[in-house]
Amino acid sequence: MAPQLDGFFKQVDDLSDHFIDRLSQAVAIPSVSSDVSRRPDVVRMAHFLEKQLTALGAEVELRPLGKQPDQPQLDLPPVVLARYGRDPSKRTILVYGHYDVQPAEKTDGWNTEPFTLSIAEDGRMLGRGSTDDKGPVLGWINAIEAHKKAGIAFPVNLLMCFEGMEEYGSEGLDDLIMAEAKKFFADAEAVCISDNYWLGTEKPCLTYGLRGCNYYAVEVSGPGQDLHSGVFGGTAQEPMTDLTRVLATLVDTDGKIQIPGIAEQVAPVTADEASLYDGIAFTMETLHDALGSKTTVFDDKKSTLMARWRYPSLSIHGVEGAFSAPGAKTVIPAKVVGKFSIRTVPNMEIDKTNELVYAYVKAQFAKLKSKNTLRVYALHTGNWWVASPKHWNFSAAAKAVERVWGVQPDFTREGGSIPVTLTFEQATGKNVLLLPMGSSTDGAHSINEKLDKKNYIEGIKLLGAYLHYFAEEPKV
Amino acid sequence: MAPQLDGFFKQVDDLSDHFIDRLSQAVAIPSVSSDVSRRPDVVRMAHFLEKQLTALGAEVELRPLGKQPDQPQLDLPPVVLARYGRDPSKRTILVYGHYDVQPAEKTDGWNTEPFTLSIAEDGRMLGRGSTDDKGPVLGWINAIEAHKKAGIAFPVNLLMCFEGMEEYGSEGLDDLIMAEAKKFFADAEAVCISDNYWLGTEKPCLTYGLRGCNYYAVEVSGPGQDLHSGVFGGTAQEPMTDLTRVLATLVDTDGKIQIPGIAEQVAPVTADEASLYDGIAFTMETLHDALGSKTTVFDDKKSTLMARWRYPSLSIHGVEGAFSAPGAKTVIPAKVVGKFSIRTVPNMEIDKTNELVYAYVKAQFAKLKSKNTLRVYALHTGNWWVASPKHWNFSAAAKAVERVWGVQPDFTREGGSIPVTLTFEQATGKNVLLLPMGSSTDGAHSINEKLDKKNYIEGIKLLGAYLHYFAEEPKV
Repeated sequence: MAPQLDGFFKQVDDLSDHFIDRLSQAVAIPSVSSDVSRRPDVVRMAHFLEKQLTALGAEVELRPLGKQPDQPQLDLPPVVLARYGRDPSKRTILVYGHYDVQPAEKTDGWNTEPFTLSIAEDGRMLGRGSTDDKGPVLGWINAIEAHKKAGIAFPVNLLMCFEGMEEYGSEGLDDLIMAEAKKFFADAEAVCISDNYWLGTEKPCLTYGLRGCNYYAVEVSGPGQDLHSGVFGGTAQEPMTDLTRVLATLVDTDGKIQIPGIAEQVAPVTADEASLYDGIAFTMETLHDALGSKTTVFDDKKSTLMARWRYPSLSIHGVEGAFSAPGAKTVIPAKVVGKFSIRTVPNMEIDKTNELVYAYVKAQFAKLKSKNTLRVYALHTGNWWVASPKHWNFSAAAKAVERVWGVQPDFTREGGSIPVTLTFEQATGKNVLLLPMGSSTDGAHSINEKLDKKNYIEGIKLLGAYLHYFAEEPKV
Repeated sequence: MAPQLDGFFKQVDDLSDHFIDRLSQAVAIPSVSSDVSRRPDVVRMAHFLEKQLTALGAEVELRPLGKQPDQPQLDLPPVVLARYGRDPSKRTILVYGHYDVQPAEKTDGWNTEPFTLSIAEDGRMLGRGSTDDKGPVLGWINAIEAHKKAGIAFPVNLLMCFEGMEEYGSEGLDDLIMAEAKKFFADAEAVCISDNYWLGTEKPCLTYGLRGCNYYAVEVSGPGQDLHSGVFGGTAQEPMTDLTRVLATLVDTDGKIQIPGIAEQVAPVTADEASLYDGIAFTMETLHDALGSKTTVFDDKKSTLMARWRYPSLSIHGVEGAFSAPGAKTVIPAKVVGKFSIRTVPNMEIDKTNELVYAYVKAQFAKLKSKNTLRVYALHTGNWWVASPKHWNFSAAAKAVERVWGVQPDFTREGGSIPVTLTFEQATGKNVLLLPMGSSTDGAHSINEKLDKKNYIEGIKLLGAYLHYFAEEPKV
């Protein structure tokens, strides 16, 4: 029997301005986890969530995680652990989100102030963290509030785990999840994470697979300090020259990774899998819109989806230590650190991949016969994840999507990595569902990140509806 | 007859604390010409010089240079034009220096605050601009003051030209020099520039040649905005991949430029020239000290000096638009601008070199068969310069060096470029001398830039003594 949801939906609509104001308040806190100077803001964001949840009657704990490994003086931001409801007759679900955000500066090219939620006439709500991941985190809180205000019984016991280091490798979280699996999280019958995106802009999806991410640093150093290129150019071996030549050997323009042994680890495509891609609601036009260009590697949907979901990719992110400002500076940087990452897929192994990367980078550098010094190391690693989309957790979510959006969702995988997904699966032994709120054009990690008002408000309805279907879906 | 200089020298020693205090005041003004937000400080530095010069009785004008070409809203800092003395029975000399500095932040790795002059026990005076070029500029002012206070007649009419955009391509200065050649500068019988360094740390030198500098930007763009590497990795052609692959083809680890046609433009080494290098006071140990490492291209002095003075070099300075901060950011930058420069030598031509660079970069990019868009252009260019070291301007300076330092100077060329040198030569038709104050370990453009107290104080004596010899040297 389909749950009664009309009263809840109406209440969400009635509270929509209030919910948007809550998102404005959250975006205004620049909780950039990778920026040491912003750490107090990250902590402030944890307290903001604590206050909102406590006001609604949830039990909340801020769990300290100790010091940050690469900054031993610095406290990690706390994990917000919360419980709403303790009725043994109800099912219990665990939801996860993160309250930290990527860096953002107006000067990066934003059209609006990144830490002020700016609402355009077409409903785009611009601001860092709007879609990644403050909108979805607040979605759970808003769903609680709408139930309370509508006087509708909450259908489940809701366990919440909101972290503040997701954009910096979820430092410290794995240990907490492992430790709490049989304690705070013990009652959870399944897990839901809302921290990814629709494949396009029109059709919702449920996500059952993610790529992993191994993030590497290649450091080349030589001189004791930065040098003037006039005085020393031609007489010193330059670290930036060496680094550039090493980075240039990693991947080609069409994204083909040049490191031997990587492709050999990738699971072959089965006939079953190959047939899956044709039905997915995705067009190259959607990709062009999201890219803002037609500079794609492939011209067809199937190759594109496979490149994104089931093949590894390698991106060069930038160089630390070199001249990076506008204008001209005639410097020979003394020490430069190239950053690149590999998105990993079944059946790649983290340690094996690291070994292949280290050996290849060292071999490329050795070819240069340079007197400079090379180091290559991983800044963080995280495994890929694939779950069963036939689980009742997914069928409950599919019914909720159909109820709210009027369409059957696509079952998709994703190119991004949310390493905690795998940790939750391994720690709890339960099925994990990824239930996205935002759409493909939201621009997480980019300038002008946004969440559409419709996705936010209907997304709140979806999260709430999902909890109702979750409460009654047959466990098959 | 050797000029009487003892009274002047004693006065310089007596005023040394006062002269160091003047340098402290100048270093405290962060006149960074490449940083738009520091423009008021650059202008403040011009007013500081005006005030010092006026107090000593010089006639001073601050000449506006109009707007900055790449920042049309922004006024260029003024040129400080000054004259000290109008005695038609004396010779007239034109001296040049610059009062702007390179960028500097404590977080770049400075041991001290870059805009506070910090004096170490061994006499190193640390601070941005101490040696490049505030110390030498103040050297002329200090020489005037010491003459006044000692009651010694000033030996020449001194014309001064101090600019505020040297570290950003001397924007606007060439036109002024051309326009004033037969006006403000009309009486000058020779030119002296103190804006370079000794070859080592012990022996002074006079410099008669400089390399030029063509500074290039290579821009690769594709997506409409920065992208998340998880979502788009493998599906988009990445500008940073293309840029890295293009930059990697420019130069090898031993500094050999890979662009065809560059080496062919370089003047061949004559037997006369080849014999010059052996006598120069320079050792590989000096270079190792200045580098802070042994990561040199060559192991011998002669090859090293030739690489620095008479062969071109290519340095990759960095990338604008990519991730450049510490930590990890999983971004695919949408538009990246690689910066590199070529130090040029006789008989390379600017336009020819530009054409070779543009053609090569475009050809390398074309090989990638990328859908991204490439632009390559020069941010600034400046020609090489070689003067006659047999001119009486040089012999006057040589006598002054011998008087102050007790040794015959080496006659050297330099690897850096001071494009204004050539402009002065062409505009005035007079001999130009480069008379350095600082030593090879001063670290201009680096962190922990310094000027040794001894070089500053003896340098003031040298500039003053040079003016006396200049006044009476036979014009042969």
